[in-house]
Amino acid sequence: MTSQEIFAQIEKKSSFLCIGLDPDPRRIPKHLLKEEDPVFTFNKAIIDNTIDQAVAYKPNLAFYEAMGPSGLETLAKTLEYLPKEVFTIADAKRGDIGNTSRLYAKAFFEQMNFDAITVAPYMGEDSVGPFLEFDGKWVILLALTSNQGSQDFQLIENNAHQPLFASVLEKSQKWGTSENMMYVVGATRGESIAEVRKLVPDHFLLVPGVGAQGGSLEEVAKYGMNKQCGLLVNSSRGIIYASSEKDFGEAAKREALALQESMSKLLDTYCN
Amino acid sequence: MTSQEIFAQIEKKSSFLCIGLDPDPRRIPKHLLKEEDPVFTFNKAIIDNTIDQAVAYKPNLAFYEAMGPSGLETLAKTLEYLPKEVFTIADAKRGDIGNTSRLYAKAFFEQMNFDAITVAPYMGEDSVGPFLEFDGKWVILLALTSNQGSQDFQLIENNAHQPLFASVLEKSQKWGTSENMMYVVGATRGESIAEVRKLVPDHFLLVPGVGAQGGSLEEVAKYGMNKQCGLLVNSSRGIIYASSEKDFGEAAKREALALQESMSKLLDTYCN
Repeated sequence: MTSQEIFAQIEKKSSFLCIGLDPDPRRIPKHLLKEEDPVFTFNKAIIDNTIDQAVAYKPNLAFYEAMGPSGLETLAKTLEYLPKEVFTIADAKRGDIGNTSRLYAKAFFEQMNFDAITVAPYMGEDSVGPFLEFDGKWVILLALTSNQGSQDFQLIENNAHQPLFASVLEKSQKWGTSENMMYVVGATRGESIAEVRKLVPDHFLLVPGVGAQGGSLEEVAKYGMNKQCGLLVNSSRGIIYASSEKDFGEAAKREALALQESMSKLLDTYCN
Repeated sequence: MTSQEIFAQIEKKSSFLCIGLDPDPRRIPKHLLKEEDPVFTFNKAIIDNTIDQAVAYKPNLAFYEAMGPSGLETLAKTLEYLPKEVFTIADAKRGDIGNTSRLYAKAFFEQMNFDAITVAPYMGEDSVGPFLEFDGKWVILLALTSNQGSQDFQLIENNAHQPLFASVLEKSQKWGTSENMMYVVGATRGESIAEVRKLVPDHFLLVPGVGAQGGSLEEVAKYGMNKQCGLLVNSSRGIIYASSEKDFGEAAKREALALQESMSKLLDTYCN
């Protein structure tokens, strides 16, 4: 998928919403547990109810791996169920030596046909490069994450006062382009998004941390939006667990619609 | 498993060899392809032929994920086949926000009963912590890896001239102990192992990069060994692909024996 195709989706739906498909078998509505594949049934209902509001879906692999081998079958079915025009992200945070990263890339881009995968930068260029060799596929590199622990290493400054996340942004731009690389930038720090945007003016940013983690959508848009929108803002728990009853699908739609309406206004204000 | 139990294995086998079970379906002997589960048959033969020389086995998840959902079945069967006294490492390089890391921990420590998992440090304490909450289980944190890309970020110095990998060693010692945390330190830089050992005198180090990647076993032992050995040196391709014919098991044994003999001498020299 090209950035132009992603932007076309964003314009069509007046939304830059990404939904995290992170189904915890202990948290999905009880009445689904009698289904043959409760998590797939849950995912289908979430997708059916939010497909007009979401431009991207992002299953986090941990939730599927924790179910054992059948979890990957559930993930594969979910991916197949998603319409071709939405952008699909394997939130896997992989990264290994070159020949091993290549196998992960095959697993996620060929076996499972995801459009994108999140990758951890710690092991450097040859751990990221193999993911960039697949036409039309994307690496979404961790830069500044939304969790507390992001302060442990990502903010360490080098002797030129550049924090580690900025070194990641700077170096990795030589490995890929704004047509095959995006960055994870947490929403929990509005001012940091401005700093990131200065370093990577054209790249899409995948922004977790709005909602359950407390980030502000307005700040993200104000500081992060570029002329192709350049943002995919993720919400997981706030949407998929909006209700734990039989109305979970409608409740998810309601939450997605509320976010989409805010996003629509922000697109009008900041993306012209 | 405790460090004392690992050391007991090392003393019993006069070896600190870890074997990487990284089976590439395109590289395993052709005659196995007619088996129902060729990779499991391959792994069994490697284990049968090297169990007297190896104290640890380390399947890299990428090789199993690249096979699709059946790959995880193969991995589970392999893990079940391994004798209880050997140390088992899921080379998965995971790491995510807290609630998600907890699911990975459950997947690898409960679903699959691995003794240890490799974890990437980029996301900091709350991404590593959940793996440390399982009794008798180990985190093996990436510190200084053996690949070329390790130079991109791991060697960046902060304004006190401390490289990133040293910050990782220093900070993470507050999260775990030498009874639930080890570090990945590549063998490709002998002098760096000495530097690491100064910072973490008691922790076990998992050392890849001997063999195919060109590291020297002698240097690793000289600079890295402590009084409980403190080293697990990994070899993958040099052992498991020693022959691509019907004699691959015997060839693997020959390579493992050669390494074990060198290790036995190094234990006599440096571990007393």
